[in-house]
Amino acid sequence: MRTSNFLLSTLKETPADAEIISHQLMLRAGMIRKVAAGIYNWLPAGLRVLRKVEKIVREEMDLAGAQEVLMPAVQPAELWQQSGRWEQYGGELLRMSDRHGREFCFGPTHEEVITSLISNEIRSYKQLPATFYQVQTKFRDERRPRFGVMRSREFIMKDAYSFHLDQASLEDTYSKMYQTYTRIFTRLGLHFRAVEADTGSIGGSASHEFHVLADSGEDAIAVCDKFDYAANVELAEALAVGGERPAATQTLEKVDTPGQTTIDAVSEYLKTPVEKTVKTLLVHAAEEGKLVALVLRGDHELNELKAEKHPLVATPLVWASDEEIQQAVGCSPGSIGVVDMTIAVIADRSAANVADFVCGANQDGVHYTGVNWERDCAEPEVYDLRTVVAGDVCARADDTNQDSQLSITRGIEVGHIFQLGTKYSEAMNASCLDNNGKAAIMPMGCYGIGVSRIVASAIEQNHDDRGIIWPEAIAPFQLVITPIGYNKSEQVKSVCDDLYQTLTGLGIEVLLDDRNERPGIMFADADLLGIPHRIVIGEKSLANDKIEYKNRRAEGPEEVPQNGIVEFLTERVLKR
Amino acid sequence: MRTSNFLLSTLKETPADAEIISHQLMLRAGMIRKVAAGIYNWLPAGLRVLRKVEKIVREEMDLAGAQEVLMPAVQPAELWQQSGRWEQYGGELLRMSDRHGREFCFGPTHEEVITSLISNEIRSYKQLPATFYQVQTKFRDERRPRFGVMRSREFIMKDAYSFHLDQASLEDTYSKMYQTYTRIFTRLGLHFRAVEADTGSIGGSASHEFHVLADSGEDAIAVCDKFDYAANVELAEALAVGGERPAATQTLEKVDTPGQTTIDAVSEYLKTPVEKTVKTLLVHAAEEGKLVALVLRGDHELNELKAEKHPLVATPLVWASDEEIQQAVGCSPGSIGVVDMTIAVIADRSAANVADFVCGANQDGVHYTGVNWERDCAEPEVYDLRTVVAGDVCARADDTNQDSQLSITRGIEVGHIFQLGTKYSEAMNASCLDNNGKAAIMPMGCYGIGVSRIVASAIEQNHDDRGIIWPEAIAPFQLVITPIGYNKSEQVKSVCDDLYQTLTGLGIEVLLDDRNERPGIMFADADLLGIPHRIVIGEKSLANDKIEYKNRRAEGPEEVPQNGIVEFLTERVLKR
Repeated sequence: MRTSNFLLSTLKETPADAEIISHQLMLRAGMIRKVAAGIYNWLPAGLRVLRKVEKIVREEMDLAGAQEVLMPAVQPAELWQQSGRWEQYGGELLRMSDRHGREFCFGPTHEEVITSLISNEIRSYKQLPATFYQVQTKFRDERRPRFGVMRSREFIMKDAYSFHLDQASLEDTYSKMYQTYTRIFTRLGLHFRAVEADTGSIGGSASHEFHVLADSGEDAIAVCDKFDYAANVELAEALAVGGERPAATQTLEKVDTPGQTTIDAVSEYLKTPVEKTVKTLLVHAAEEGKLVALVLRGDHELNELKAEKHPLVATPLVWASDEEIQQAVGCSPGSIGVVDMTIAVIADRSAANVADFVCGANQDGVHYTGVNWERDCAEPEVYDLRTVVAGDVCARADDTNQDSQLSITRGIEVGHIFQLGTKYSEAMNASCLDNNGKAAIMPMGCYGIGVSRIVASAIEQNHDDRGIIWPEAIAPFQLVITPIGYNKSEQVKSVCDDLYQTLTGLGIEVLLDDRNERPGIMFADADLLGIPHRIVIGEKSLANDKIEYKNRRAEGPEEVPQNGIVEFLTERVLKR
Repeated sequence: MRTSNFLLSTLKETPADAEIISHQLMLRAGMIRKVAAGIYNWLPAGLRVLRKVEKIVREEMDLAGAQEVLMPAVQPAELWQQSGRWEQYGGELLRMSDRHGREFCFGPTHEEVITSLISNEIRSYKQLPATFYQVQTKFRDERRPRFGVMRSREFIMKDAYSFHLDQASLEDTYSKMYQTYTRIFTRLGLHFRAVEADTGSIGGSASHEFHVLADSGEDAIAVCDKFDYAANVELAEALAVGGERPAATQTLEKVDTPGQTTIDAVSEYLKTPVEKTVKTLLVHAAEEGKLVALVLRGDHELNELKAEKHPLVATPLVWASDEEIQQAVGCSPGSIGVVDMTIAVIADRSAANVADFVCGANQDGVHYTGVNWERDCAEPEVYDLRTVVAGDVCARADDTNQDSQLSITRGIEVGHIFQLGTKYSEAMNASCLDNNGKAAIMPMGCYGIGVSRIVASAIEQNHDDRGIIWPEAIAPFQLVITPIGYNKSEQVKSVCDDLYQTLTGLGIEVLLDDRNERPGIMFADADLLGIPHRIVIGEKSLANDKIEYKNRRAEGPEEVPQNGIVEFLTERVLKR
């Protein structure tokens, strides 16, 4: 491609409304333009990247035996009513009525359509397992679309759905998709982690998210490199800190703590380390009208998702009001404690491991010190209630590996694989005949990749102060030829044109910058656009039979003999 | 691909609600499935064809220097309000409101979005001309969607838009696009015609439609092979029939024609050939409250589009009511004539060429015979008013070529190229600086191809009673291997598997039918699906070192020596 026939709409200034670096760089490099909130045009430079992502995704899905289909963007309400999601989905579902007043939505996902389709097309277990995928435009009417195509309303997704005779087959395909996703993100050249997203009731790992790691990621991920374990920080299992609970050494004492209502304040007032305090939080019980006490070590945070999984706790979690607390234990929230507690107590693993601790005395302005479980209050029910923090021991660790610590990193979710089970196939009666001739509801899996979001997340992970640094596999062009004086020197023009021809013929995607611009502008545009390889051709270096080569990731350029440049580039660009 | 991993959902019965053959065959061959009226799923077999069409379209657009972009499906109302089409577009525009109550539509076309985009990105004439295209899902809320993907509501279109400094540049790109479209439809293997769609006020041929010729086509096209002329029948120029007007030979006579109010009845009653009668039709004049008389030969049909182009005639055309006719000429509609006509008369070229004709006498139940222009009534204004019929002389003919006759054929519109002029660029103020530094509104062209419709129209043109006969370039598979006893004979299985591997490796798209089905069913499915080449592999023919080959278009099969089959197929499939 020549820039004279390419819409290279670079911007010098960073647009004011772009908050994150990928959004800024995609606008500055002329990859996207906003049409409305969360709705974008893809310009030629951006679309080239998007198509490369799509291509890699398609190739790997095909290789995994998934069959490509194309389902409509506009979906009838009836299907969503069958699954129950017409009511449940809420404001993100963009609804519309056609000229006859029939209701439709712009599909944010396609479980309903594929399940309805396959329930008619697949009749026998002999046709199973079968996986179908599409690359399709979706719409989610985000309340606050932002960050460019990272969280846009209209976006492109690869979604896939698998159908099975039984759970074993689903798990088999799930594992194949896990490998396929791993290959896809590896080929894309991204630094990523598969993250355990849920260990649901089905058993096993029923859901993994694939995250591109980047400091700007919205999700915190707990990672242990020793055990190749990664989980959303909200879901990562938190072990008890330290070993067994020590024996009691102090006696129980009641002390005045006037006006001290926070853990930090009490800890400082009593000169007790915060790890030797516990906090008691009252929440609504699943049983109407009752409360439950959740106990954590003073320095730990309650993980509401984990608490909600406990059968005694109401879902979603509801905090007890000050009045309810007063009525139940006779004090304000800052002075609750476990001694003489009359309501059910659930203690986090680490809180249950502390001896000689400080806690409230269920009396305003008074705390206990030297509290010990069993001796001073009932041994509590122990449960994983807290969110992991950096330095926690990995849940995969055994006794011989207590040095495997979690670190917390940030990620952008770009893929999600999920064992759906029979949620949709039951609602839409998608069954097939098993080998006994009996109708069996088909368990399903679903597998999504945010194709347009990958483009933005690749930039979040690969950029510097000059612009984007594309992974080679998805760069809009592989090589840029920057001539010095293309329109002034016959020699420069002729060398550039010849090389352009030769390299293009070899299958290298070349951008020849044949604009009549100053070299500084051309260099800046090439760097901004993130083209991995660059050669500079000018009369001065040609006089020495040299051509300047620079890798986008390298510090400086290197000189290559003119007669060896094709071989050199073939090696660098094609045979990496 | 093996059928064991391919959703080959063929149907034996023709679905009741499919009216045209392509719709029937696409359902029967398992290419599409209906989701809602005018909204379809594309199954794997259909999508393979669709993607091949897309690929050819993209390759040729790229070759023509057009740049691919991707504009959103969901478009903000503001843009359509700027162009004025938010009000004008009517019921076909699928409108919706987002969660904040802002109005959007599902784009049926993208003139507004591209014009708004380019008005911001292109600043200088140096960036012109520039053509942008996309392949995108569109929605038109047809009042009566039908014929499957031939006239669906959600469909896939390639739309392109070009921007220019002046009309000359627009005409240049238009001509390039004409050639590109010709190459596209040629590569697709379709029998097609470029049809003059309008010779508008801009001058020259400002619009061409590309039609796939098929008996089931909705549009009638007048075609002259001698002059490579084709025009929509509504728009084709109609010359005067015969040569100069003969001299008068009869005298004017008034005759009673009691109860004869139609041309046919009068013609028969008076024993006069219908070609020697003229009919006079009264319509509203452009000037309020006046009427105009349109005169055609008895056997010719008024073309309303042509009449509307005459400055004296009201647009849109309004027929005079019986009362208005009575008031103006004193008779019923069946007895109007040109003798003593007091209102403006416009005669079709052929009507103006008749001598000694019959017409009404502006008196119920009375006609004139032997009427001659000039002698019995004023020489009329002559205008092209009628729709051409088969056998008419081609408008491109000159005096030496009066044998070049029009034939009427039917076509399916699959492409449309159009010189838009400045309609959108003016409304949206899309200008660039010309070489004098002055802002100039950019003339635009637009160029559409109905990608999904092409699939259906290819079938309308290529089928027999057994099913589809794909043009080679867009067949879902190039070759099917039909084993006889794949699951019973080790030899058959091994030969099939080896050939499948070898041929796939050579780049041939092979479907290996490894189902455990009767040969009759496999043959029927392969024919229905329209795969161009088939080989049959069974123990019997292998015993004679033979493999049976059949072309989908051929009458019967031929035998090929087993050791020559790869070479044979390479020749037939790849080197056509």
